[in-house]
Amino acid sequence: MITDIKKSAEEIENLLEEKDYRTLRSTISDMDPADAAEVLDSVEEEHIPLVFRILPKEFASECFVEMDSDHQMTLITAFSDAELNEVIDNLFVDDTVDLLDEMPANVVKRVLSHATPEKRAAINQILAYPKNSAGAFMTTEFVELKANMTFDQVFKKIRRTGVDKETIYTCYVTDDFRKLIGVITVKDIMTAQNEEATVGELMETQIISVNTTEDQEIAAKMLSKYDLLALPVVDNENRLVGIVTYDDAMDIIESEDTEDIEIMAAITPTDKPYLKVGIFETWKKRIPWLLLLMVSATVTSKILQHFEHALAAQAALIAFIPMLMDTGGNAGGQVSVTIIRGLSLGEISLGDILRILWKEFRVAILCGITLASANFVKMMLIDNVNIMTAIVVCLTVAAAVIIAKLIGCTLPILAKRIGLDPAVMASPFITTIVDALSLMVYFAIASTLIGI
Amino acid sequence: MITDIKKSAEEIENLLEEKDYRTLRSTISDMDPADAAEVLDSVEEEHIPLVFRILPKEFASECFVEMDSDHQMTLITAFSDAELNEVIDNLFVDDTVDLLDEMPANVVKRVLSHATPEKRAAINQILAYPKNSAGAFMTTEFVELKANMTFDQVFKKIRRTGVDKETIYTCYVTDDFRKLIGVITVKDIMTAQNEEATVGELMETQIISVNTTEDQEIAAKMLSKYDLLALPVVDNENRLVGIVTYDDAMDIIESEDTEDIEIMAAITPTDKPYLKVGIFETWKKRIPWLLLLMVSATVTSKILQHFEHALAAQAALIAFIPMLMDTGGNAGGQVSVTIIRGLSLGEISLGDILRILWKEFRVAILCGITLASANFVKMMLIDNVNIMTAIVVCLTVAAAVIIAKLIGCTLPILAKRIGLDPAVMASPFITTIVDALSLMVYFAIASTLIGI
Repeated sequence: MITDIKKSAEEIENLLEEKDYRTLRSTISDMDPADAAEVLDSVEEEHIPLVFRILPKEFASECFVEMDSDHQMTLITAFSDAELNEVIDNLFVDDTVDLLDEMPANVVKRVLSHATPEKRAAINQILAYPKNSAGAFMTTEFVELKANMTFDQVFKKIRRTGVDKETIYTCYVTDDFRKLIGVITVKDIMTAQNEEATVGELMETQIISVNTTEDQEIAAKMLSKYDLLALPVVDNENRLVGIVTYDDAMDIIESEDTEDIEIMAAITPTDKPYLKVGIFETWKKRIPWLLLLMVSATVTSKILQHFEHALAAQAALIAFIPMLMDTGGNAGGQVSVTIIRGLSLGEISLGDILRILWKEFRVAILCGITLASANFVKMMLIDNVNIMTAIVVCLTVAAAVIIAKLIGCTLPILAKRIGLDPAVMASPFITTIVDALSLMVYFAIASTLIGI
Repeated sequence: MITDIKKSAEEIENLLEEKDYRTLRSTISDMDPADAAEVLDSVEEEHIPLVFRILPKEFASECFVEMDSDHQMTLITAFSDAELNEVIDNLFVDDTVDLLDEMPANVVKRVLSHATPEKRAAINQILAYPKNSAGAFMTTEFVELKANMTFDQVFKKIRRTGVDKETIYTCYVTDDFRKLIGVITVKDIMTAQNEEATVGELMETQIISVNTTEDQEIAAKMLSKYDLLALPVVDNENRLVGIVTYDDAMDIIESEDTEDIEIMAAITPTDKPYLKVGIFETWKKRIPWLLLLMVSATVTSKILQHFEHALAAQAALIAFIPMLMDTGGNAGGQVSVTIIRGLSLGEISLGDILRILWKEFRVAILCGITLASANFVKMMLIDNVNIMTAIVVCLTVAAAVIIAKLIGCTLPILAKRIGLDPAVMASPFITTIVDALSLMVYFAIASTLIGI
């Protein structure tokens, strides 16, 4: 059952006006909390606290997690201490950390002062890990077992503590020093041949885990690669400190992809959804790159200034400059984006560079020949230029494509090798470099063949 | 424990040479099947069947699923009927379908003839759904319960049938007509207050499900949005026919993102990893777009031809054409990519177009003023042009940025409205259109101010 957000928000506003709080409560709590959060985000801001207070407590907390951070703040500000207590109590540790990440210091302080001591310790521990690390992203609410437990004991433990765990389906076995020694799933236990066995006998001891300092993106990709429900996070002594769950991994993957896409389009990435970013912030995310790329184009201007008189004499050549530059830019953009994505998905590694260059060289030759031939026909039929001009332009097209493809595959790999984000080396940068090189080739060929 | 693929592959080759099959078997089967598959993919192709046969049967099947499709084919061809039986028997239905999708007809026939009748029926059913639909992507191996079952009966059923299910953690409750009436999780049951309750009393009846014909991307995004382990797939009569699980949803999201990124870079998308795509295939994926965009540049050529003599007389203007075009292209690319991603993530809907235009218009004014001012300073200090030329260029920069931003946000939304993939309207197309418009503005301003 999926909710039409806009329609529901209007309905809620009407119910508020009619003061029909009973229907309002039941209408919202029949929704999935994720939908209810979107609906709450869409009603008038001053109504949010009222609607929120009408909802059943636990449901309200589930909604709260999914709401926009500005509305979360509105609510926290409106909450009494008792209400804040209730909500914080119902939140998972990792959700609390996410919440605090977006809040100003005074709100953080107020929230922390309302958490239980254990929760506060867990939150502070997670807050201490570097941003974007597995430690900063994990949750500390997992099921921890001992190797000598029977299945019956495991079930009893899960029954007792399971409600508050982020997942109960994968359980972690630790020794007396909290070192991670095994992993066992509820499925393993429920379908075990021998119901009398102990955890230690059935557990998997080949454990896939990450260190707290590992990049969250790598943790998410491991979860996806190994089809895990949750990935254990350990410290340098292999002590289990937390887990990253599949639903969080999905969110990481989506937001890392968004980040890559934004960087490839020469935008400083942001976590916020488009419509939530203000005018000045949007400007600030875009303008440095536009300025940098604009100033870099000084090189092409200089080249053209140098050949100004030659061009004035051979004015027919001017008309094809945009086409040459766009074609080079597009050809380079195609390969750089392919390589950037391949690196990000782990399909390509740094050692593949020679193989890639050789492949792209051959593809470039094919593309160059095709484009030059098509262009020659077009120029003779449509553009009505003389044959020597057509030859100069077509040779340049072929050369520009080859240069673009080779630069387009080399730069992202080099960027990765020196520790930069390869996504920076996408179309905009490649275009700027290829533009300058293509123009130089254009004039070199023109001066050789038609003596400009 | 993560495996160094290249090192392991060498180790395996050495063990093969020494004929130390015992060590070989234990080395590989200690790995995670996903890693073992990569290692198998990296050994000499003629060794693959031999290594595969040495592995424990069930482990071998798990590896098989993860291997490259060409190597899967090598193996299927090498298999005896008994071996093929064994592997197919151990595969989940959805993995079998994925496998068959990549195989030639004779292999499909051979595989199907080795499946059990029920499995064959399930496979054929899935194969009948449209490509990229939830039906084509689902698996039919889920736990189906009745509302009157006790928890004890549920556990017995899971114990009996659970091993062969894709997930046992979310179970689906159907009525006598196989209609989906509820969802219950193992966590719900294990942590239930009342252990004597029946499934019907505890199950969730507000069910989130998709129709078989729904786009797989939408199904994957719902799974992610609602943090589900599995999403039920129903037919038009609400009968439960399958489920999509979170691990498959992750794969869908990754490959849909890759597809978007490729389309945005003017490449026809492909499912294969970069290094597996041949030279001609790579060329075929890229050349139509390069040709189309090159031919579209005829418009800019025509505009320039029209002003050829004016440009020859005012040669100083030529030098700034590439900069104007790149800046317009970059400014348009930034916004189009942002909008495309926003549409894809569901952060933006078609109804937001006016809000977006108004926002982008204001951002464009800010960017235009910044770029024009910076450019003016640069032109006076570095390029040494006369002040009128600088004014013409700077006014054009500002105009080009505004045009580019407005076109960049409009086209993806229009594309979506008429049912095209918005990703097509990314940088390459926007650039081509913005180029032509910027040039026209350039000459209009130049003829007004300096009378070219």
